[in-house]
Amino acid sequence: MRNKISIGIDIGGTNIEIAWVNSDGKILNQINYKTNKFKTGKEFADYIAPIIIDENKNYNNILGIGIGAPNGNYFTGNIEFAPNLGWDEVIPLAKLFRENIGLNTKLTNDANAAAYAEMIYGDAKLMKNFVVITLGTGLGSGIVVNSEMLYGSTGFAGEFGHIIIKENGRECGCGRNGCLETYASATGIVKTANQILKQSNSVLSKINNFEAKDIYSAALSGDEVAIKSIEFTGEILGKAIADYTALFSPEAVFLSGGLAKAHSLIIPATENAMNNNMLKIFKNTVEILPSKLIDKNAGLLGAAAMIMD
Amino acid sequence: MRNKISIGIDIGGTNIEIAWVNSDGKILNQINYKTNKFKTGKEFADYIAPIIIDENKNYNNILGIGIGAPNGNYFTGNIEFAPNLGWDEVIPLAKLFRENIGLNTKLTNDANAAAYAEMIYGDAKLMKNFVVITLGTGLGSGIVVNSEMLYGSTGFAGEFGHIIIKENGRECGCGRNGCLETYASATGIVKTANQILKQSNSVLSKINNFEAKDIYSAALSGDEVAIKSIEFTGEILGKAIADYTALFSPEAVFLSGGLAKAHSLIIPATENAMNNNMLKIFKNTVEILPSKLIDKNAGLLGAAAMIMD
Repeated sequence: MRNKISIGIDIGGTNIEIAWVNSDGKILNQINYKTNKFKTGKEFADYIAPIIIDENKNYNNILGIGIGAPNGNYFTGNIEFAPNLGWDEVIPLAKLFRENIGLNTKLTNDANAAAYAEMIYGDAKLMKNFVVITLGTGLGSGIVVNSEMLYGSTGFAGEFGHIIIKENGRECGCGRNGCLETYASATGIVKTANQILKQSNSVLSKINNFEAKDIYSAALSGDEVAIKSIEFTGEILGKAIADYTALFSPEAVFLSGGLAKAHSLIIPATENAMNNNMLKIFKNTVEILPSKLIDKNAGLLGAAAMIMD
Repeated sequence: MRNKISIGIDIGGTNIEIAWVNSDGKILNQINYKTNKFKTGKEFADYIAPIIIDENKNYNNILGIGIGAPNGNYFTGNIEFAPNLGWDEVIPLAKLFRENIGLNTKLTNDANAAAYAEMIYGDAKLMKNFVVITLGTGLGSGIVVNSEMLYGSTGFAGEFGHIIIKENGRECGCGRNGCLETYASATGIVKTANQILKQSNSVLSKINNFEAKDIYSAALSGDEVAIKSIEFTGEILGKAIADYTALFSPEAVFLSGGLAKAHSLIIPATENAMNNNMLKIFKNTVEILPSKLIDKNAGLLGAAAMIMD
């Protein structure tokens, strides 16, 4: 497998990243687009095919393409009803890539891809049971049970983000209310900060349409609204992890994705809420860890790793 | 394995059942006690050892003892912090049985035992991903993922009953509030009926300390409070199953345990709420089925089956 290349594609609600990765996990070339540049999945597949074919001329031994996408189904190779993409309902993306580019293509959930990366390149190498939570535009999760990715009977299992944690809570892109990702995600924390902001005088009030990363910067410089927003988000996430532990009993929960870059602030709040809400039999059995792959785009590496595997 | 006998023990919050079971799953002899007859787990183990030893004289080829108990840990053989038993905190029950009786003894969660029974004797024989929910004094669950029981890293995974579904909801025996089992269980439905009863004129008002089975009888004869109580319980359970589906994507959820005897009323209410709250990608992928082993005590059969296995 040395000197082989695989192409990893990470499709998120905001960005699409494409990378040529070698067998050591080193990224040789990377390109990216805004997701909303493409109105449908087919438009994206048609646009990108000649670009990938052209770039491939620079490499020998390309094994194939691994794609991580929200609501990506490993069994069918389709993206189905992904509320955060704004694309069509069922996109046979693996099939379109095979047809347009002629390479072996596998597709999975973006968060499952991050979990593959954690398993192969990260701190979960020796763990049989763990969870990766990606805090990006939405909240994704990859769940490994007995050393295998949890796919269930449909290929869609493992969606923590759409567990309803507040009755009549915030509206979710999935059409329901109160899903975890409406609170614990980059989008969720911005909503939280805006709510807290109304009653206060924060540096955030001077930023038009501030983002999650602005909240993190503000918190680091001591801004109270930003700190409260992170603590509130950690509290919701920690309570949810306490509940999930009763289901999966993982050794560790890794936080990944953009919002997890604030881990020095969000992890203590999350741990505190987890410990206060944990069933007695599970106390002190779960670690919350920052993914060490955060700055490397675990989803992208994991997508490529699926093909190396 | 023909003509072999195993001893199954089902320990519940209310009753303890002990059975001698042959390799066809036929119960040859059965005895039972009220759980609160024993103040500690050791008291139970000491009391029952000579009775089992004496009864064993009637059989040849006894393979061992399988125990299903709340918070029973397959890895350690202990019952740990089981709020519904009122026994001591950590009970090394498998070890006590091995010492007192001298037979191979395995222990698991009572609901996992019911799931083993469904897998071996019930309608889940051909399923790789399914869930068994036991609606008894509490709510137990056994989760099978990729044809294996879900134990997680601690041996305690799969506890749906202690997922918090209502903030500041009913007090739970686990010390927290709003756990699913405080609503969806025999105990939960009695609380529900008592709450609805205050505003009405039901046949239940004539029964002192009515139980779940009284609610079911009353509902069958058209009593409105009883019907509303079952519908409310089914609604909570169906919403929770919709959420669980996003995690496990099972082919089927089997309802077992005492309250599931009311399946002709509770399943339509549960299905309705599940369908109304299901993420689009999971619609029409999950069946809610009554366990056909309800009247046979699936937990007891499953406990015995662990040893046959």
